[in-house]
Amino acid sequence: MPITCIGVGPGDKELITIKAVKAIEKADCIIVPEKKEGAKKSTALGIAKDYIPKNTPIIYMYFPMIPIQSNKEYVDHYFSSNGKQLNEYLAEGKDLVFLTLGDPNVYSTFSYIKDYLEEDVQYIPGIASFLQGAAITKRPLCLGQESFGVINMTDDENRIKEAFRVHDSLVVMKVSANPKLLKDLLITNNKKAEFLSNMGLENESVKCDMEFLDGKIPYFTIAQVY
Amino acid sequence: MPITCIGVGPGDKELITIKAVKAIEKADCIIVPEKKEGAKKSTALGIAKDYIPKNTPIIYMYFPMIPIQSNKEYVDHYFSSNGKQLNEYLAEGKDLVFLTLGDPNVYSTFSYIKDYLEEDVQYIPGIASFLQGAAITKRPLCLGQESFGVINMTDDENRIKEAFRVHDSLVVMKVSANPKLLKDLLITNNKKAEFLSNMGLENESVKCDMEFLDGKIPYFTIAQVY
Repeated sequence: MPITCIGVGPGDKELITIKAVKAIEKADCIIVPEKKEGAKKSTALGIAKDYIPKNTPIIYMYFPMIPIQSNKEYVDHYFSSNGKQLNEYLAEGKDLVFLTLGDPNVYSTFSYIKDYLEEDVQYIPGIASFLQGAAITKRPLCLGQESFGVINMTDDENRIKEAFRVHDSLVVMKVSANPKLLKDLLITNNKKAEFLSNMGLENESVKCDMEFLDGKIPYFTIAQVY
Repeated sequence: MPITCIGVGPGDKELITIKAVKAIEKADCIIVPEKKEGAKKSTALGIAKDYIPKNTPIIYMYFPMIPIQSNKEYVDHYFSSNGKQLNEYLAEGKDLVFLTLGDPNVYSTFSYIKDYLEEDVQYIPGIASFLQGAAITKRPLCLGQESFGVINMTDDENRIKEAFRVHDSLVVMKVSANPKLLKDLLITNNKKAEFLSNMGLENESVKCDMEFLDGKIPYFTIAQVY
């Protein structure tokens, strides 16, 4: 497995799988995405760092966190130069591990960089934030013949509205992108929600009061709607 | 934490979290659901057994796997007697761990038994089968502003149809319950799917051909629709 993308889970250092820890221990090099160029700060690395052997090099890679379609040229510049760098390591025969928060197939940057790589990728799944959310709220996401949806407040308003109609429960990501619409839909559909911010981190909070949506909402906030 | 419900992941023994392993090691007693009364067979136990200390007692509990509404009295009989037994252990001050396949809040039997317990429950999330599915197919469940749904082929036909319309991608559980409808919807909506059976087990298989839906479908089959 020359390049393995690993989900390190939602925040708690122990919510990482044995398989992920073993891959980290064996890797020649750990690749860590950073949100600000040169900041050398990464939540995923904070979770995984106790499992990384002392002499394993850690390489930070900056990935712009703006929607790809908003400035395709700018985003593509970074993705192709990061891809080139990864391909060079792979050509040297290095075993690379790329860390992602949560699960690598749920809203992950890695899904974009994959297309620039010349070698096949392996995945190790991780605990997605919404599974940890349900563990905290102690509310099932689905039972029996029910269904649930994972939606995003940056999505088209009509699609968000339809998702409210279709499912028994919903996980709402990026709550801070449109709290007003979320509040309207909770009221219109006679639904309740719990709001989870900064899960697994020191400033974790859980709120059940809808007025949470009127205040300043932390960036890492998801809602479980039921 | 007197009773902790643990998700042991989808099948691979290493796709369990460090937190789950620690809770198993500390437990006074491991509770394992069985699908056939007295069969003493459990997929969840098969995954976790290497982590259970030699002298920790393992208690099998039979839970009927029929929909609760189909025979409420029959189901309730088992749930209340299991609940009574668990409450007795809890009253003795025992630390109990209850094992569930995948994640404890995604289609888990434990969600029902919880209501019969006199003590508070803790949860440790697990890798849900559909996250491992996406790791195998190497297809993201969602990107950017997209959304996805987790649906069940035992659900109402109209709701299943709407879910196909609303989301970019879908995870379809219990494929074997209505393969004909699934095939119709894939064709009508011009969607593709990968079919994953017996993930993490010896007889795991992945099929991309829609004709899979015309044959005999293993019970543990999910589809990733895109």
